[in-house]
Amino acid sequence: MTHRFWVAAEQLDGEIVHFSDEQAHQLRSVLRLRAGAEVFVFDGRSRVDRRVELTDAAHGRVMGEVPQAPEPRTRLSVYPALLQRDKFELVLQKLTEVGAQHITPVVTRRSLVREAPDERRYARWRAILREAAEQSGRGVLPELLPARPLAEALTSLYAQPQPDALSARDEALEPEACAIFAYEGERELTLRDALRERPTRVALFVGPEGGYTSEEVACARRAGAQVVTLGPRVLRAETAVLVASALVLSELGDLSW
Amino acid sequence: MTHRFWVAAEQLDGEIVHFSDEQAHQLRSVLRLRAGAEVFVFDGRSRVDRRVELTDAAHGRVMGEVPQAPEPRTRLSVYPALLQRDKFELVLQKLTEVGAQHITPVVTRRSLVREAPDERRYARWRAILREAAEQSGRGVLPELLPARPLAEALTSLYAQPQPDALSARDEALEPEACAIFAYEGERELTLRDALRERPTRVALFVGPEGGYTSEEVACARRAGAQVVTLGPRVLRAETAVLVASALVLSELGDLSW
Repeated sequence: MTHRFWVAAEQLDGEIVHFSDEQAHQLRSVLRLRAGAEVFVFDGRSRVDRRVELTDAAHGRVMGEVPQAPEPRTRLSVYPALLQRDKFELVLQKLTEVGAQHITPVVTRRSLVREAPDERRYARWRAILREAAEQSGRGVLPELLPARPLAEALTSLYAQPQPDALSARDEALEPEACAIFAYEGERELTLRDALRERPTRVALFVGPEGGYTSEEVACARRAGAQVVTLGPRVLRAETAVLVASALVLSELGDLSW
Repeated sequence: MTHRFWVAAEQLDGEIVHFSDEQAHQLRSVLRLRAGAEVFVFDGRSRVDRRVELTDAAHGRVMGEVPQAPEPRTRLSVYPALLQRDKFELVLQKLTEVGAQHITPVVTRRSLVREAPDERRYARWRAILREAAEQSGRGVLPELLPARPLAEALTSLYAQPQPDALSARDEALEPEACAIFAYEGERELTLRDALRERPTRVALFVGPEGGYTSEEVACARRAGAQVVTLGPRVLRAETAVLVASALVLSELGDLSW
Protein backbone atom coordinates (compact mmCIF):
# COMPACT_ATOMS: atom_id res chain seq x y z
CA MET A 1 0.00 0.00 0.00
CA THR A 2 1.55 3.29 -1.07
CA HIS A 3 0.47 6.57 0.49
CA ARG A 4 0.27 9.65 -1.70
CA PHE A 5 -0.08 13.25 -0.61
CA TRP A 6 -0.84 16.34 -2.61
CA VAL A 7 1.46 19.19 -1.52
CA ALA A 8 1.25 22.89 -2.39
CA ALA A 9 4.28 24.43 -4.09
CA GLU A 10 5.36 26.10 -0.84
CA GLN A 11 5.49 22.76 0.97
CA LEU A 12 8.38 21.69 -1.25
CA ASP A 13 11.67 23.36 -0.32
CA GLY A 14 14.38 21.81 -2.48
CA GLU A 15 14.70 18.24 -1.24
CA ILE A 16 12.72 18.92 1.92
CA VAL A 17 8.97 18.32 2.19
CA HIS A 18 7.04 20.21 4.86
CA PHE A 19 3.84 18.33 5.61
CA SER A 20 0.80 20.31 6.74
CA ASP A 21 -0.50 19.84 10.28
CA GLU A 22 -3.30 17.72 8.92
CA GLN A 23 -0.91 15.57 6.90
CA ALA A 24 1.43 15.20 9.87
CA HIS A 25 -1.52 14.01 11.94
CA GLN A 26 -2.47 11.56 9.20
CA LEU A 27 1.09 10.23 8.92
CA ARG A 28 1.62 9.86 12.63
CA SER A 29 -1.73 9.02 14.15
CA VAL A 30 -3.73 7.42 11.38
CA LEU A 31 -1.11 5.65 9.25
CA ARG A 32 1.30 5.27 12.20
CA LEU A 33 4.32 5.86 10.00
CA ARG A 34 7.70 6.68 11.53
CA ALA A 35 10.97 8.22 10.38
CA GLY A 36 12.38 6.11 7.55
CA ALA A 37 8.97 5.18 6.10
CA GLU A 38 8.33 5.91 2.44
CA VAL A 39 5.47 7.96 1.03
CA PHE A 40 4.86 9.75 -2.26
CA VAL A 41 3.99 13.40 -2.83
CA PHE A 42 2.82 15.26 -5.92
CA ASP A 43 2.25 18.93 -6.53
CA GLY A 44 -0.37 18.87 -9.31
CA ARG A 45 2.04 20.50 -11.79
CA SER A 46 5.14 18.42 -12.43
CA ARG A 47 4.14 15.12 -13.98
CA VAL A 48 6.03 12.99 -11.48
CA ASP A 49 5.44 11.66 -8.00
CA ARG A 50 8.30 12.29 -5.60
CA ARG A 51 9.39 9.37 -3.46
CA VAL A 52 9.89 10.74 0.03
CA GLU A 53 11.50 9.27 3.12
CA LEU A 54 10.01 10.60 6.34
CA THR A 55 12.61 12.32 8.54
CA ASP A 56 10.15 13.13 11.32
CA ALA A 57 6.39 13.32 11.64
CA ALA A 58 6.18 16.63 9.79
CA HIS A 59 9.04 16.43 7.30
CA GLY A 60 10.50 14.24 4.62
CA ARG A 61 13.36 14.15 2.13
CA VAL A 62 12.88 13.58 -1.61
CA MET A 63 14.72 10.40 -2.59
CA GLY A 64 13.64 10.07 -6.21
CA GLU A 65 10.90 10.43 -8.76
CA VAL A 66 8.44 8.05 -10.34
CA PRO A 67 6.24 8.75 -13.38
CA GLN A 68 2.57 9.40 -12.81
CA ALA A 69 -0.36 7.71 -14.49
CA PRO A 70 -0.97 9.62 -17.72
CA GLU A 71 -3.77 12.19 -17.78
CA PRO A 72 -6.58 11.68 -20.33
CA ARG A 73 -5.84 13.22 -23.71
CA THR A 74 -9.46 14.33 -23.81
CA ARG A 75 -10.13 17.51 -21.87
CA LEU A 76 -13.40 16.59 -20.22
CA SER A 77 -15.33 19.45 -18.63
CA VAL A 78 -18.29 18.15 -16.67
CA TYR A 79 -21.32 20.27 -15.74
CA PRO A 80 -23.22 18.20 -13.19
CA ALA A 81 -26.42 19.60 -11.70
CA LEU A 82 -25.99 20.45 -8.02
CA LEU A 83 -27.29 17.60 -5.90
CA GLN A 84 -27.89 17.05 -2.23
CA ARG A 85 -24.75 17.04 -0.18
CA ASP A 86 -23.62 13.42 -0.03
CA LYS A 87 -24.60 12.73 -3.63
CA PHE A 88 -22.70 15.71 -4.96
CA GLU A 89 -19.65 14.78 -2.91
CA LEU A 90 -19.82 11.31 -4.45
CA VAL A 91 -19.95 12.94 -7.89
CA LEU A 92 -16.84 15.02 -7.16
CA GLN A 93 -14.94 11.99 -5.92
CA LYS A 94 -15.92 9.77 -8.84
CA LEU A 95 -15.22 12.44 -11.49
CA THR A 96 -11.72 12.83 -10.08
CA GLU A 97 -11.06 9.10 -10.23
CA VAL A 98 -12.37 8.68 -13.73
CA GLY A 99 -10.45 11.66 -15.15
CA ALA A 100 -12.52 14.86 -15.47
CA GLN A 101 -10.50 18.03 -15.94
CA HIS A 102 -13.00 20.75 -15.02
CA ILE A 103 -16.12 20.49 -12.87
CA THR A 104 -18.75 23.25 -12.88
CA PRO A 105 -21.75 22.69 -10.57
CA VAL A 106 -24.89 23.80 -12.36
CA VAL A 107 -28.21 25.06 -10.98
CA THR A 108 -31.11 23.79 -13.07
CA ARG A 109 -34.85 24.30 -12.98
CA ARG A 110 -35.56 21.12 -11.05
CA SER A 111 -32.46 21.19 -8.84
CA LEU A 112 -33.41 20.51 -5.24
CA VAL A 113 -30.29 22.43 -4.25
CA ARG A 114 -30.46 25.97 -5.59
CA GLU A 115 -28.36 28.25 -3.44
CA ALA A 116 -24.77 28.79 -4.50
CA PRO A 117 -22.44 26.90 -2.15
CA ASP A 118 -20.48 29.05 0.30
CA GLU A 119 -16.71 29.17 0.62
CA ARG A 120 -16.73 26.61 3.42
CA ARG A 121 -18.49 24.15 1.12
CA TYR A 122 -15.98 24.80 -1.65
CA ALA A 123 -13.10 24.15 0.74
CA ARG A 124 -14.68 20.83 1.68
CA TRP A 125 -15.21 19.97 -1.99
CA ARG A 126 -11.61 20.79 -2.83
CA ALA A 127 -10.48 18.47 -0.04
CA ILE A 128 -12.59 15.71 -1.60
CA LEU A 129 -10.96 16.28 -5.01
CA ARG A 130 -7.53 16.24 -3.40
CA GLU A 131 -8.16 13.04 -1.51
CA ALA A 132 -9.63 11.33 -4.59
CA ALA A 133 -6.57 12.34 -6.65
CA GLU A 134 -4.25 11.03 -3.92
CA GLN A 135 -6.03 7.68 -3.90
CA SER A 136 -6.47 7.25 -7.63
CA GLY A 137 -2.87 8.02 -8.55
CA ARG A 138 -3.85 11.12 -10.52
CA GLY A 139 -1.18 13.79 -10.73
CA VAL A 140 -3.58 16.64 -11.47
CA LEU A 141 -6.62 17.82 -9.52
CA PRO A 142 -9.73 18.64 -11.52
CA GLU A 143 -10.40 22.37 -11.53
CA LEU A 144 -13.54 23.17 -9.54
CA LEU A 145 -15.30 26.22 -11.01
CA PRO A 146 -17.98 28.39 -9.43
CA ALA A 147 -21.57 27.13 -9.60
CA ARG A 148 -23.71 28.81 -12.26
CA PRO A 149 -27.19 28.62 -13.71
CA LEU A 150 -27.62 26.28 -16.66
CA ALA A 151 -28.33 28.99 -19.24
CA GLU A 152 -25.17 30.82 -18.24
CA ALA A 153 -23.09 27.63 -18.35
CA LEU A 154 -24.38 26.87 -21.85
CA THR A 155 -23.62 30.42 -23.02
CA SER A 156 -20.13 30.28 -21.53
CA LEU A 157 -19.24 27.45 -23.90
CA TYR A 158 -18.85 29.95 -26.65
CA ALA A 159 -17.64 32.87 -24.58
CA GLN A 160 -14.72 34.84 -25.88
CA PRO A 161 -11.55 34.11 -23.94
CA GLN A 162 -11.00 36.73 -21.25
CA PRO A 163 -7.30 37.60 -21.19
CA ASP A 164 -7.34 37.93 -17.41
CA ALA A 165 -9.56 34.95 -16.63
CA LEU A 166 -7.79 31.67 -17.08
CA SER A 167 -10.77 29.62 -15.97
CA ALA A 168 -13.12 31.27 -18.39
CA ARG A 169 -10.67 30.58 -21.17
CA ASP A 170 -10.19 26.99 -20.13
CA GLU A 171 -13.88 26.48 -20.19
CA ALA A 172 -14.60 28.03 -23.57
CA LEU A 173 -15.15 25.49 -26.28
CA GLU A 174 -12.58 25.44 -29.01
CA PRO A 175 -13.41 24.36 -32.55
CA GLU A 176 -12.44 20.74 -31.97
CA ALA A 177 -14.79 20.58 -29.01
CA CYS A 178 -18.22 19.15 -28.54
CA ALA A 179 -20.97 19.72 -26.00
CA ILE A 180 -23.07 16.76 -24.88
CA PHE A 181 -26.30 16.98 -22.94
CA ALA A 182 -27.64 13.75 -21.40
CA TYR A 183 -31.43 13.65 -21.45
CA GLU A 184 -33.71 10.77 -20.54
CA GLY A 185 -36.28 11.93 -23.10
CA GLU A 186 -33.88 11.38 -26.01
CA ARG A 187 -34.17 8.05 -27.80
CA GLU A 188 -32.02 8.25 -30.90
CA LEU A 189 -28.61 9.81 -30.46
CA THR A 190 -26.12 7.82 -28.39
CA LEU A 191 -22.98 9.13 -26.76
CA ARG A 192 -20.96 7.20 -29.30
CA ASP A 193 -22.76 8.89 -32.21
CA ALA A 194 -22.14 12.27 -30.61
CA LEU A 195 -18.40 11.60 -30.38
CA ARG A 196 -17.93 10.35 -33.91
CA GLU A 197 -15.73 13.30 -34.90
CA ARG A 198 -13.33 12.39 -32.09
CA PRO A 199 -13.33 15.73 -30.28
CA THR A 200 -10.38 16.54 -28.04
CA ARG A 201 -12.52 18.64 -25.70
CA VAL A 202 -15.89 17.57 -24.41
CA ALA A 203 -18.34 19.56 -22.29
CA LEU A 204 -20.74 17.13 -20.63
CA PHE A 205 -24.02 18.19 -19.01
CA VAL A 206 -25.95 15.86 -16.72
CA GLY A 207 -29.16 16.92 -14.97
CA PRO A 208 -30.62 16.68 -11.46
CA GLU A 209 -32.79 13.92 -9.94
CA GLY A 210 -35.93 15.18 -11.63
CA GLY A 211 -34.24 15.57 -15.01
CA TYR A 212 -34.04 18.61 -17.27
CA THR A 213 -37.19 20.43 -18.35
CA SER A 214 -38.05 20.52 -22.05
CA GLU A 215 -37.21 24.24 -22.06
CA GLU A 216 -33.74 23.43 -20.78
CA VAL A 217 -33.27 20.81 -23.49
CA ALA A 218 -34.34 23.35 -26.13
CA CYS A 219 -31.88 25.84 -24.67
CA ALA A 220 -29.09 23.24 -24.90
CA ARG A 221 -29.92 22.51 -28.53
CA ARG A 222 -29.87 26.23 -29.35
CA ALA A 223 -26.45 26.43 -27.70
CA GLY A 224 -25.23 23.72 -30.09
CA ALA A 225 -25.15 20.82 -27.63
CA GLN A 226 -25.86 17.30 -28.83
CA VAL A 227 -28.67 15.76 -26.78
CA VAL A 228 -27.96 12.08 -26.09
CA THR A 229 -29.58 9.08 -24.42
CA LEU A 230 -27.90 6.92 -21.78
CA GLY A 231 -30.31 4.10 -22.51
CA PRO A 232 -33.73 2.87 -21.42
CA ARG A 233 -33.09 2.51 -17.70
CA VAL A 234 -33.37 5.73 -15.75
CA LEU A 235 -30.08 6.33 -13.97
CA ARG A 236 -29.95 8.33 -10.76
CA ALA A 237 -28.33 11.70 -11.26
CA GLU A 238 -25.06 10.74 -9.58
CA THR A 239 -24.90 7.44 -11.48
CA ALA A 240 -25.56 9.18 -14.79
CA VAL A 241 -22.70 11.66 -14.29
CA LEU A 242 -20.19 8.92 -13.63
CA VAL A 243 -21.45 6.60 -16.36
CA ALA A 244 -21.54 9.33 -19.01
CA SER A 245 -18.05 10.56 -18.08
CA ALA A 246 -16.60 7.06 -18.20
CA LEU A 247 -18.27 6.38 -21.55
CA VAL A 248 -16.86 9.60 -23.05
CA LEU A 249 -13.34 8.81 -21.87
CA SER A 250 -13.58 5.17 -22.91
CA GLU A 251 -14.94 6.03 -26.34
CA LEU A 252 -12.08 8.47 -26.92
CA GLY A 253 -9.44 5.98 -25.82
CA ASP A 254 -8.70 7.41 -22.39
CA LEU A 255 -9.54 4.36 -20.30
CA SER A 256 -6.57 2.47 -21.68
CA TRP A 257 -2.83 2.94 -21.24
CA MET B 1 -43.23 12.05 -10.80
CA THR B 2 -44.51 8.52 -11.17
CA HIS B 3 -44.33 6.05 -8.29
CA ARG B 4 -43.54 2.44 -9.05
CA PHE B 5 -43.86 -0.53 -6.74
CA TRP B 6 -42.62 -4.05 -7.12
CA VAL B 7 -45.33 -6.52 -6.06
CA ALA B 8 -45.07 -10.25 -5.46
CA ALA B 9 -47.35 -12.49 -7.53
CA GLU B 10 -49.67 -13.04 -4.54
CA GLN B 11 -50.26 -9.29 -4.19
CA LEU B 12 -52.02 -9.26 -7.55
CA ASP B 13 -55.49 -10.73 -7.37
CA GLY B 14 -57.12 -10.23 -10.77
CA GLU B 15 -57.62 -6.48 -11.06
CA ILE B 16 -57.02 -5.88 -7.36
CA VAL B 17 -53.62 -4.97 -5.95
CA HIS B 18 -52.95 -5.69 -2.27
CA PHE B 19 -50.15 -3.45 -1.09
CA SER B 20 -47.89 -4.70 1.69
CA ASP B 21 -47.98 -2.95 5.07
CA GLU B 22 -44.72 -1.23 4.20
CA GLN B 23 -46.05 -0.07 0.83
CA ALA B 24 -49.30 1.11 2.41
CA HIS B 25 -47.25 3.15 4.88
CA GLN B 26 -45.20 4.58 2.03
CA LEU B 27 -48.30 5.47 0.01
CA ARG B 28 -50.16 7.05 2.89
CA SER B 29 -47.56 8.60 5.15
CA VAL B 30 -44.56 9.29 2.93
CA LEU B 31 -46.08 10.02 -0.47
CA ARG B 32 -49.40 11.21 1.05
CA LEU B 33 -51.41 9.70 -1.79
CA ARG B 34 -55.17 9.23 -1.43
CA ALA B 35 -57.85 7.15 -3.11
CA GLY B 36 -57.95 8.06 -6.79
CA ALA B 37 -54.20 8.69 -7.08
CA GLU B 38 -52.30 6.79 -9.76
CA VAL B 39 -49.26 4.59 -9.20
CA PHE B 40 -47.58 1.83 -11.19
CA VAL B 41 -46.82 -1.72 -10.12
CA PHE B 42 -44.71 -4.43 -11.72
CA ASP B 43 -44.19 -8.04 -10.78
CA GLY B 44 -40.74 -8.75 -12.21
CA ARG B 45 -42.17 -11.30 -14.69
CA SER B 46 -44.66 -9.79 -17.10
CA ARG B 47 -42.94 -7.16 -19.22
CA VAL B 48 -45.47 -4.43 -18.49
CA ASP B 49 -46.11 -1.95 -15.71
CA ARG B 50 -49.69 -1.92 -14.50
CA ARG B 51 -51.31 1.46 -14.05
CA VAL B 52 -53.17 1.33 -10.77
CA GLU B 53 -55.71 3.65 -9.18
CA LEU B 54 -55.63 3.61 -5.39
CA THR B 55 -58.95 2.57 -3.89
CA ASP B 56 -57.78 2.96 -0.29
CA ALA B 57 -54.43 3.13 1.45
CA ALA B 58 -53.76 -0.58 1.07
CA HIS B 59 -55.48 -1.46 -2.20
CA GLY B 60 -55.69 -0.42 -5.80
CA ARG B 61 -57.38 -1.40 -9.04
CA VAL B 62 -55.52 -2.11 -12.29
CA MET B 63 -56.63 0.42 -14.93
CA GLY B 64 -54.28 -0.44 -17.76
CA GLU B 65 -50.81 -1.46 -18.81
CA VAL B 66 -47.78 0.41 -20.08
CA PRO B 67 -44.67 -1.12 -21.65
CA GLN B 68 -41.52 -1.29 -19.56
CA ALA B 69 -38.07 -0.08 -20.51
CA PRO B 70 -36.45 -2.94 -22.42
CA GLU B 71 -33.99 -5.17 -20.57
CA PRO B 72 -30.42 -5.38 -21.90
CA ARG B 73 -29.97 -8.03 -24.58
CA THR B 74 -26.64 -8.86 -22.93
CA ARG B 75 -26.95 -11.12 -19.91
CA LEU B 76 -24.47 -9.47 -17.61
CA SER B 77 -23.47 -11.48 -14.53
CA VAL B 78 -21.36 -9.38 -12.19
CA TYR B 79 -19.05 -10.84 -9.55
CA PRO B 80 -18.08 -7.90 -7.34
CA ALA B 81 -15.78 -8.49 -4.40
CA LEU B 82 -17.58 -8.04 -1.08
CA LEU B 83 -16.95 -4.53 0.24
CA GLN B 84 -17.72 -2.71 3.44
CA ARG B 85 -21.38 -2.22 4.06
CA ASP B 86 -22.25 1.14 2.51
CA LYS B 87 -19.96 0.61 -0.46
CA PHE B 88 -21.43 -2.76 -1.30
CA GLU B 89 -24.95 -1.40 -0.97
CA LEU B 90 -23.99 1.34 -3.43
CA VAL B 91 -22.71 -1.37 -5.79
CA LEU B 92 -26.00 -3.28 -5.59
CA GLN B 93 -28.02 -0.13 -6.26
CA LYS B 94 -25.87 0.99 -9.19
CA LEU B 95 -25.73 -2.46 -10.81
CA THR B 96 -29.52 -2.59 -10.76
CA GLU B 97 -29.82 0.82 -12.42
CA VAL B 98 -27.28 0.08 -15.10
CA GLY B 99 -28.74 -3.30 -16.00
CA ALA B 100 -26.91 -6.28 -14.42
CA GLN B 101 -28.83 -9.55 -14.48
CA HIS B 102 -27.05 -11.59 -11.83
CA ILE B 103 -24.94 -10.41 -8.91
CA THR B 104 -22.69 -12.82 -6.99
CA PRO B 105 -20.73 -11.30 -4.09
CA VAL B 106 -17.22 -12.74 -4.08
CA VAL B 107 -14.75 -13.23 -1.24
CA THR B 108 -11.20 -12.57 -2.41
CA ARG B 109 -7.80 -12.75 -0.76
CA ARG B 110 -7.63 -9.06 0.07
CA SER B 111 -11.32 -8.56 0.85
CA LEU B 112 -11.73 -6.62 4.08
CA VAL B 113 -15.11 -8.28 4.44
CA ARG B 114 -14.70 -12.05 4.58
CA GLU B 115 -17.59 -13.57 6.47
CA ALA B 116 -20.57 -14.70 4.40
CA PRO B 117 -23.47 -12.30 4.89
CA ASP B 118 -26.35 -13.61 7.04
CA GLU B 119 -29.97 -13.86 5.96
CA ARG B 120 -30.80 -10.47 7.49
CA ARG B 121 -28.16 -8.86 5.32
CA TYR B 122 -29.50 -10.60 2.21
CA ALA B 123 -33.02 -9.37 3.01
CA ARG B 124 -31.67 -5.82 3.24
CA TRP B 125 -29.77 -6.26 -0.02
CA ARG B 126 -32.86 -7.55 -1.79
CA ALA B 127 -34.77 -4.50 -0.59
CA ILE B 128 -32.05 -2.30 -2.13
CA LEU B 129 -32.35 -4.12 -5.46
CA ARG B 130 -36.12 -3.76 -5.37
CA GLU B 131 -36.00 -0.06 -4.60
CA ALA B 132 -33.40 0.56 -7.31
CA ALA B 133 -35.53 -1.30 -9.87
CA GLU B 134 -38.60 0.70 -8.82
CA GLN B 135 -36.73 3.97 -9.30
CA SER B 136 -34.90 3.13 -12.51
CA GLY B 137 -37.96 1.84 -14.35
CA ARG B 138 -36.55 -1.68 -14.62
CA GLY B 139 -39.12 -4.43 -14.88
CA VAL B 140 -36.82 -7.18 -13.65
CA LEU B 141 -34.80 -7.41 -10.45
CA PRO B 142 -31.23 -8.65 -10.74
CA GLU B 143 -30.86 -12.09 -9.20
CA LEU B 144 -28.74 -11.96 -6.05
CA LEU B 145 -26.78 -15.19 -5.63
CA PRO B 146 -25.03 -16.50 -2.53
CA ALA B 147 -21.56 -15.14 -1.78
CA ARG B 148 -18.71 -17.48 -2.71
CA PRO B 149 -14.93 -17.59 -2.75
CA LEU B 150 -13.28 -16.36 -5.95
CA ALA B 151 -11.87 -19.75 -6.99
CA GLU B 152 -15.28 -21.33 -6.67
CA ALA B 153 -16.96 -18.52 -8.62
CA LEU B 154 -14.42 -18.92 -11.43
CA THR B 155 -14.94 -22.68 -11.50
CA SER B 156 -18.71 -22.28 -11.57
CA LEU B 157 -18.48 -20.48 -14.91
CA TYR B 158 -18.04 -23.80 -16.60
CA ALA B 159 -20.19 -25.89 -14.30
CA GLN B 160 -22.60 -28.32 -15.89
CA PRO B 161 -26.19 -27.14 -15.71
CA GLN B 162 -27.97 -28.65 -12.73
CA PRO B 163 -31.48 -29.64 -13.79
CA ASP B 164 -32.91 -28.69 -10.43
CA ALA B 165 -30.90 -25.51 -9.87
CA LEU B 166 -32.05 -22.68 -12.04
CA SER B 167 -29.51 -20.27 -10.59
CA ALA B 168 -26.58 -22.56 -11.20
CA ARG B 169 -27.73 -23.01 -14.77
CA ASP B 170 -28.22 -19.30 -15.27
CA GLU B 171 -24.77 -18.68 -14.05
CA ALA B 172 -22.96 -21.25 -16.15
CA LEU B 173 -21.23 -19.76 -19.15
CA GLU B 174 -22.57 -20.84 -22.49
CA PRO B 175 -20.40 -20.97 -25.60
CA GLU B 176 -21.29 -17.43 -26.68
CA ALA B 177 -20.21 -16.13 -23.30
CA CYS B 178 -17.09 -14.40 -22.13
CA ALA B 179 -15.54 -13.87 -18.71
CA ILE B 180 -13.80 -10.59 -18.00
CA PHE B 181 -11.53 -9.90 -15.05
CA ALA B 182 -10.65 -6.26 -14.33
CA TYR B 183 -7.10 -5.92 -13.00
CA GLU B 184 -5.13 -2.76 -12.37
CA GLY B 185 -1.88 -4.56 -13.23
CA GLU B 186 -3.00 -5.19 -16.82
CA ARG B 187 -1.84 -2.67 -19.40
CA GLU B 188 -2.69 -4.08 -22.80
CA LEU B 189 -6.11 -5.63 -23.16
CA THR B 190 -9.06 -3.22 -22.97
CA LEU B 191 -12.66 -4.09 -22.27
CA ARG B 192 -13.46 -3.29 -25.88
CA ASP B 193 -10.84 -5.76 -27.12
CA ALA B 194 -12.23 -8.41 -24.82
CA LEU B 195 -15.73 -7.94 -26.25
CA ARG B 196 -14.77 -8.02 -29.90
CA GLU B 197 -16.64 -11.27 -30.54
CA ARG B 198 -19.85 -9.61 -29.31
CA PRO B 199 -20.75 -12.13 -26.60
CA THR B 200 -24.37 -12.32 -25.49
CA ARG B 201 -23.40 -13.34 -21.96
CA VAL B 202 -20.68 -11.66 -19.96
CA ALA B 203 -19.34 -12.62 -16.54
CA LEU B 204 -17.56 -9.61 -15.06
CA PHE B 205 -15.19 -9.84 -12.08
CA VAL B 206 -14.08 -6.74 -10.19
CA GLY B 207 -11.84 -6.90 -7.14
CA PRO B 208 -11.76 -5.37 -3.66
CA GLU B 209 -10.12 -2.13 -2.48
CA GLY B 210 -6.66 -3.67 -2.34
CA GLY B 211 -7.02 -5.33 -5.76
CA TYR B 212 -6.58 -8.95 -6.73
CA THR B 213 -3.39 -10.83 -5.88
CA SER B 214 -1.24 -12.12 -8.73
CA GLU B 215 -2.26 -15.67 -7.76
CA GLU B 216 -5.90 -14.70 -8.22
CA VAL B 217 -5.13 -13.21 -11.63
CA ALA B 218 -3.35 -16.42 -12.64
CA CYS B 219 -6.35 -18.42 -11.44
CA ALA B 220 -8.67 -16.25 -13.55
CA ARG B 221 -6.50 -16.76 -16.64
CA ARG B 222 -6.49 -20.52 -16.08
CA ALA B 223 -10.29 -20.38 -15.86
CA GLY B 224 -10.36 -18.76 -19.30
CA ALA B 225 -11.14 -15.19 -18.21
CA GLN B 226 -9.78 -12.26 -20.19
CA VAL B 227 -7.84 -9.93 -17.90
CA VAL B 228 -8.50 -6.30 -18.84
CA THR B 229 -7.41 -2.80 -17.83
CA LEU B 230 -9.80 0.01 -16.91
CA GLY B 231 -7.08 2.57 -17.63
CA PRO B 232 -4.26 4.32 -15.85
CA ARG B 233 -6.19 5.92 -12.99
CA VAL B 234 -6.88 3.59 -10.10
CA LEU B 235 -10.62 3.42 -9.56
CA ARG B 236 -12.06 2.64 -6.15
CA ALA B 237 -13.61 -0.80 -6.04
CA GLU B 238 -17.20 0.46 -6.12
CA THR B 239 -16.41 2.88 -8.96
CA ALA B 240 -14.71 0.15 -10.97
CA VAL B 241 -17.71 -2.18 -10.74
CA LEU B 242 -20.09 0.43 -12.04
CA VAL B 243 -17.75 1.75 -14.74
CA ALA B 244 -16.88 -1.71 -16.04
CA SER B 245 -20.54 -2.78 -16.10
CA ALA B 246 -21.60 0.37 -17.95
CA LEU B 247 -18.77 -0.05 -20.46
CA VAL B 248 -19.73 -3.66 -21.17
CA LEU B 249 -23.38 -2.77 -21.73
CA SER B 250 -22.53 0.30 -23.79
CA GLU B 251 -20.05 -1.59 -25.95
CA LEU B 252 -22.65 -4.27 -26.67
CA GLY B 253 -25.34 -1.73 -27.55
CA ASP B 254 -27.40 -1.95 -24.37
CA LEU B 255 -27.18 1.68 -23.30
CA SER B 256 -29.29 2.77 -26.23
CA TRP B 257 -32.95 2.22 -27.09
